Amino acid sequence: MHEISTLAQRVQLLERSWFDQALLRQNRLTKPPQSLGRLEDIACRIAAIQRTLSPAVDHKMLVVFAADHGVTEEGVSPYPAEVTAQMVANFLRGGAAINALAKTAGAKLVIVDAGVKSPIPAVDGWNGQMQFIQQPVRKGSRNFAKEPALTMDETATALRLGYDVAMKAKEAGVNLIGIGEMGIGNTTAAAAVTAALTGLPGASVTGRGTGADDQTLARKKSVVEQALRLHSPDANDPLRILQTVGGLELAGLAGVCLGAAASRIAIVCDGFIATAGAALAVRLCPASADYMFAAHLSAEPGHAALLEILQQKPLLDLNMRLGEGTGAALAMTIIDAAVRAFTEMATFEAAGVSNR
Amino acid sequence: MHEISTLAQRVQLLERSWFDQALLRQNRLTKPPQSLGRLEDIACRIAAIQRTLSPAVDHKMLVVFAADHGVTEEGVSPYPAEVTAQMVANFLRGGAAINALAKTAGAKLVIVDAGVKSPIPAVDGWNGQMQFIQQPVRKGSRNFAKEPALTMDETATALRLGYDVAMKAKEAGVNLIGIGEMGIGNTTAAAAVTAALTGLPGASVTGRGTGADDQTLARKKSVVEQALRLHSPDANDPLRILQTVGGLELAGLAGVCLGAAASRIAIVCDGFIATAGAALAVRLCPASADYMFAAHLSAEPGHAALLEILQQKPLLDLNMRLGEGTGAALAMTIIDAAVRAFTEMATFEAAGVSNR
Repeated sequence: MHEISTLAQRVQLLERSWFDQALLRQNRLTKPPQSLGRLEDIACRIAAIQRTLSPAVDHKMLVVFAADHGVTEEGVSPYPAEVTAQMVANFLRGGAAINALAKTAGAKLVIVDAGVKSPIPAVDGWNGQMQFIQQPVRKGSRNFAKEPALTMDETATALRLGYDVAMKAKEAGVNLIGIGEMGIGNTTAAAAVTAALTGLPGASVTGRGTGADDQTLARKKSVVEQALRLHSPDANDPLRILQTVGGLELAGLAGVCLGAAASRIAIVCDGFIATAGAALAVRLCPASADYMFAAHLSAEPGHAALLEILQQKPLLDLNMRLGEGTGAALAMTIIDAAVRAFTEMATFEAAGVSNR
Repeated sequence: MHEISTLAQRVQLLERSWFDQALLRQNRLTKPPQSLGRLEDIACRIAAIQRTLSPAVDHKMLVVFAADHGVTEEGVSPYPAEVTAQMVANFLRGGAAINALAKTAGAKLVIVDAGVKSPIPAVDGWNGQMQFIQQPVRKGSRNFAKEPALTMDETATALRLGYDVAMKAKEAGVNLIGIGEMGIGNTTAAAAVTAALTGLPGASVTGRGTGADDQTLARKKSVVEQALRLHSPDANDPLRILQTVGGLELAGLAGVCLGAAASRIAIVCDGFIATAGAALAVRLCPASADYMFAAHLSAEPGHAALLEILQQKPLLDLNMRLGEGTGAALAMTIIDAAVRAFTEMATFEAAGVSNR
């Protein structure tokens, strides 16, 4: 685990001076001060992340980590576990919501199999526009209601897998990374992680996920509580939380956040599960929070508590709860607009517009 | 005014059956039901507007109506009235926020001079990507604190100007229209229109606009109250409201809404002023509300009351208060994403994904 701490140490705190310089420029642009609202803060933070007054987010990537969860044995999802593999095939064929939304955002899509259990169905109409990284750490995590989800080695390998995705993105010139996920059962894991990180009761942060009925929801809550009693994870030990009640896509998500922050790439977190991964990264390395944007407010009850760990206010609230990175894709276009307004607008002086 | 009623009658009510058919398709797509939240409603309504299960919003136009206001004589804005003309020149050069945001949204920009008073400064670096319609009905409206802003003929001409913009857009194949505005003093006019339409006290719907200080805000409130006392407009006579306390860009905005609705083109309303124009259209023709989307919640206090007339919930809340159509541009990308997910996603059946 020594390696993980070393990775985390590479993340640098944002320099306030870049933010301040960007703010000075905002106030010279042809608009009343602060009239672009949160767009102005976004652009200033991107300027500070990239350390330039000419920031750009024109090279976007959306990475979706997929993995399975042993805890599905407990009947926590209305969908069969095979759906994870089927949906990965759907991504590769271009038929999922995230395909359409990544296209709208102009983001390259990267699918990472971090631990899908069932064989991924053959894909005829392979959509060459996307990248598929097939490096399952193991074929799904163990049932954390009965035993730790992962070994420490597996956890570290999945974290490193995510970290390396960010490193390769940096080499390719990516300047904005959206993060999403696919994994039947992963709202159960994310709920357990949220409870462990925040100390909140498991039941209070467990929601309906893909649409659990009352009976399934009750079972899900009791499974989360049972797992917390079994492993009693320490809120200050994010690696142990990830290993006992997390999952392989959650580790990948945490890893890509650390790698992106270390590479000074802004990160757009999707909903509940992606934010659970990001919150683990923040606990591993608090400075990484400065690189994160919260895309939207998920309908899942645990999401708000995770956003407090990130200290981020969501950009959108559209009652979405799909995951896959769909909220992140939408938020990426908002961030794009914010940065373009900042870099492309004329100043009062240059435009010959009378200022007050 | 007979002509205006005829125009308004061309708007047809949406057929519920198209919405229902679209909803059936939503539930067959590879996602848990309703998991795309408000995106699903958006796509269903666009399907109903366009009367097809293959809707498209790939031909976007953002139209900005500019005009001046005689009421600026009363000292209601921190900016001099010349800024309207200067900002129109800034639009034409591509240096304003709306230029950057329309580009992000992939929307063609159309600037309409419906009544700018000062000469529009010569533009060297003309940006040929946009259209400039220079048809000022008169050089700014009259000071409505002392006399009616417009004559009935001027009001009808400006309405028709907006209506014709929509007709030409329809011919050009536009399938989504965003509406914005520029006009120093126009939050004062929009506040008076809002009070007249809703019966709310003028002071309660008057805000800081481009950034009025306490003294200017107090003056602005008293000017609005004074105008309402002078003209005592009837809430059920939107044309008279437009004529007495409105303005030329407000009439243009109302006209383009009627024209778009009559042409079955969805409309994205920007902030307070654009929504005041849209609300006038709804009072002229209630069926037009079904064609409108509210882009965002403006920081102006009168905006929420106008949204009730439209019966629309804003898509975004980013603390923006710039106008120009900037909020509409952002919301157009959300609508684009909603429609693309609806038309491009695979069904459970086609993708071989197990449904519940």
